[in-house]
Amino acid sequence: MADRLTGGDSSLLRRINAAVTLRALRDGQAVTLTQLVGDTGLSRPTVEGVIEGLIEAGLVAEVEQSQDSGRQRGRPARWFRFRAEAGHILGIEIGVHEIRVILADLTGRVLGSHAKSAAETLDPEERLTLARTTVAEVLRKAGVSRDSLWAVAVGSPGIVDREGTVKLGTAMPGWTGLDLGARLRRSFRCPVMIENDANLAAIAEHWQGAAVGKGDLVFVMAGLSPGAGSLINGRLHRGFGGAAGEIGALHLLGQEATPERLLSTTGKPLDPLDEAAVARVLRLAREGDQVAQVAMDRFLRRLVHDVAALVLALDPEIVVVGGWAAGLDGVLEPLRQQLELYCLRAPEVVLAALGEEVVAMGALRVALDTVEEQLFAVDSPGVSAR
Amino acid sequence: MADRLTGGDSSLLRRINAAVTLRALRDGQAVTLTQLVGDTGLSRPTVEGVIEGLIEAGLVAEVEQSQDSGRQRGRPARWFRFRAEAGHILGIEIGVHEIRVILADLTGRVLGSHAKSAAETLDPEERLTLARTTVAEVLRKAGVSRDSLWAVAVGSPGIVDREGTVKLGTAMPGWTGLDLGARLRRSFRCPVMIENDANLAAIAEHWQGAAVGKGDLVFVMAGLSPGAGSLINGRLHRGFGGAAGEIGALHLLGQEATPERLLSTTGKPLDPLDEAAVARVLRLAREGDQVAQVAMDRFLRRLVHDVAALVLALDPEIVVVGGWAAGLDGVLEPLRQQLELYCLRAPEVVLAALGEEVVAMGALRVALDTVEEQLFAVDSPGVSAR
Repeated sequence: MADRLTGGDSSLLRRINAAVTLRALRDGQAVTLTQLVGDTGLSRPTVEGVIEGLIEAGLVAEVEQSQDSGRQRGRPARWFRFRAEAGHILGIEIGVHEIRVILADLTGRVLGSHAKSAAETLDPEERLTLARTTVAEVLRKAGVSRDSLWAVAVGSPGIVDREGTVKLGTAMPGWTGLDLGARLRRSFRCPVMIENDANLAAIAEHWQGAAVGKGDLVFVMAGLSPGAGSLINGRLHRGFGGAAGEIGALHLLGQEATPERLLSTTGKPLDPLDEAAVARVLRLAREGDQVAQVAMDRFLRRLVHDVAALVLALDPEIVVVGGWAAGLDGVLEPLRQQLELYCLRAPEVVLAALGEEVVAMGALRVALDTVEEQLFAVDSPGVSAR
Repeated sequence: MADRLTGGDSSLLRRINAAVTLRALRDGQAVTLTQLVGDTGLSRPTVEGVIEGLIEAGLVAEVEQSQDSGRQRGRPARWFRFRAEAGHILGIEIGVHEIRVILADLTGRVLGSHAKSAAETLDPEERLTLARTTVAEVLRKAGVSRDSLWAVAVGSPGIVDREGTVKLGTAMPGWTGLDLGARLRRSFRCPVMIENDANLAAIAEHWQGAAVGKGDLVFVMAGLSPGAGSLINGRLHRGFGGAAGEIGALHLLGQEATPERLLSTTGKPLDPLDEAAVARVLRLAREGDQVAQVAMDRFLRRLVHDVAALVLALDPEIVVVGGWAAGLDGVLEPLRQQLELYCLRAPEVVLAALGEEVVAMGALRVALDTVEEQLFAVDSPGVSAR
């Protein structure tokens, strides 16, 4: 792809100067040429040249400043701003029960979002069609052209490899083996990234949720097929094969302790996709039903064990609990107690803050990373000393 | 500490030139000035100046080349080599049953090593005295002065924080709370690093053992208080509080499944530090004793579960099994089978290759990193673009 900053001019220095200048403009405030010269450390003629190029590329606009301060005599100051509306990004969740799409500008400001519920029985074709329809609707409502998309990121349950193929996805029929990346890239001309849903939730909670400023975190998505995502030093830990955090399998190890069995009040396991049945058990337990309370206790003990395994392996600063466990009364206290018992420095344990949008927000952040890489990155292969 | 390359001259350029030149010399071969000019890309006068400085600093020696190839007319070629003997490093293990010290030169070439057995009942003073004695002996035998030590790294069981305080160390009496770093820094004038033993074992197996070239690895130290160390992208993952991989606690979660109970053949748990009793059970099992075999099976099932938890959390490329499980027949197969069942892409599972020296070798590698940082690092704060 041609360099957006220099229109294909590959001069490294010119690229760096453009990135440095854009960085000085990225917070969205209009600034004067003189301020830019001060902020960037570049010479005035260099900044003038860079700005001209960025205006041509559509990334910077000159701003009419009506209330000129009058301090300046002679040549009036010229004001510029970053055109965040020059492009757009999408964060998408393709989930078992829902498709969700969030649209934002190049600074990540949300311009629109929409969710459609999906039947858990949809086959991949139907599910992808629903996703495309939801995207089209969000774009149409916001009056944004598909051509102005710079990056799209998509969250999906299951183990997803770096190219976007679902290596294992038991939550949705036909999902395992699906080349989700290739399928979605046909619908967009910009880069499309695919990522595991719990990984995106970890990213989102770190960006705008319960773990802002905490770079070592584990996000636990509690559900009938629980998963987890983790950041180490602020960066996603995917694992060698993209499967890090897939603790659901721990349930299988040597014991019949799947959530659908643990939460059953009838002796027969729940349907592994029937979240409504789970909600019923939770409600009953809250209302004082003893059988349901016993089932809840069993489930919580198991969840605590899974989270403890993650904590012992990774030693994070904070554990964020989401998925429907975020709606469970009393999931935090047993977790905290157990972790304090067995960890020297027990991590903070908090509930997720972002709610239903967490996965799509994480996807939006991944798309935004791609954009920022194109716009603001000064590092580039060959620049660093080794 | 004054810069070893420039004798305190803080000129960044001069430092970089010296590092670049040393790098070209680091493999130990004697090379000519002309080769250095070619290898470094620096000008001849610059290389001459740098070499002069490095000779003064004792890091480079001019070599008499008797069999001059005769190809060159005029000025005879001058040959130089890196003086790996200009300084030394130590890798030390302070273990429950043994103190081990390895001495090497600045390229990591081992010059000597020694191990002393330690009673598990030693108090910290006695244990530290034994460590100092072992160091003195290794230095004396090799004819190396303590002043020529550039870096010392030490492995210890337990959770060790970044400054070298043992936050938790149940394997040795009086170890928890010990400021091991401060105590040992009194004995050396060079940097002293303290690290968890399983973490060092992971580093060592990646350096010279069973996981060379595999940057995503988990090392499992099987023993009565099992632990693990992991590398992610070739770098040690310590965790936020230095406790990553302390899976021993998993045994405690909700079940009475400690190794000393699992391995018992009498109904009474073994002494948690009595490795001889463990060896007895293993021998009996090998000899066909049924009670011992049942105990072994119990223990292996538990070990498999712990390793599975680590693998699910981290998704490494390879699992290296060490500690005394490395001496167990049949630990690999059940592990492989279980991991294949529950992991999409089961990691390779291998036995540790380095044997008893693994922790001290890992310590040596950490000390060598410090040396290489001083000698060869071109990056330096302020050099990189962001």
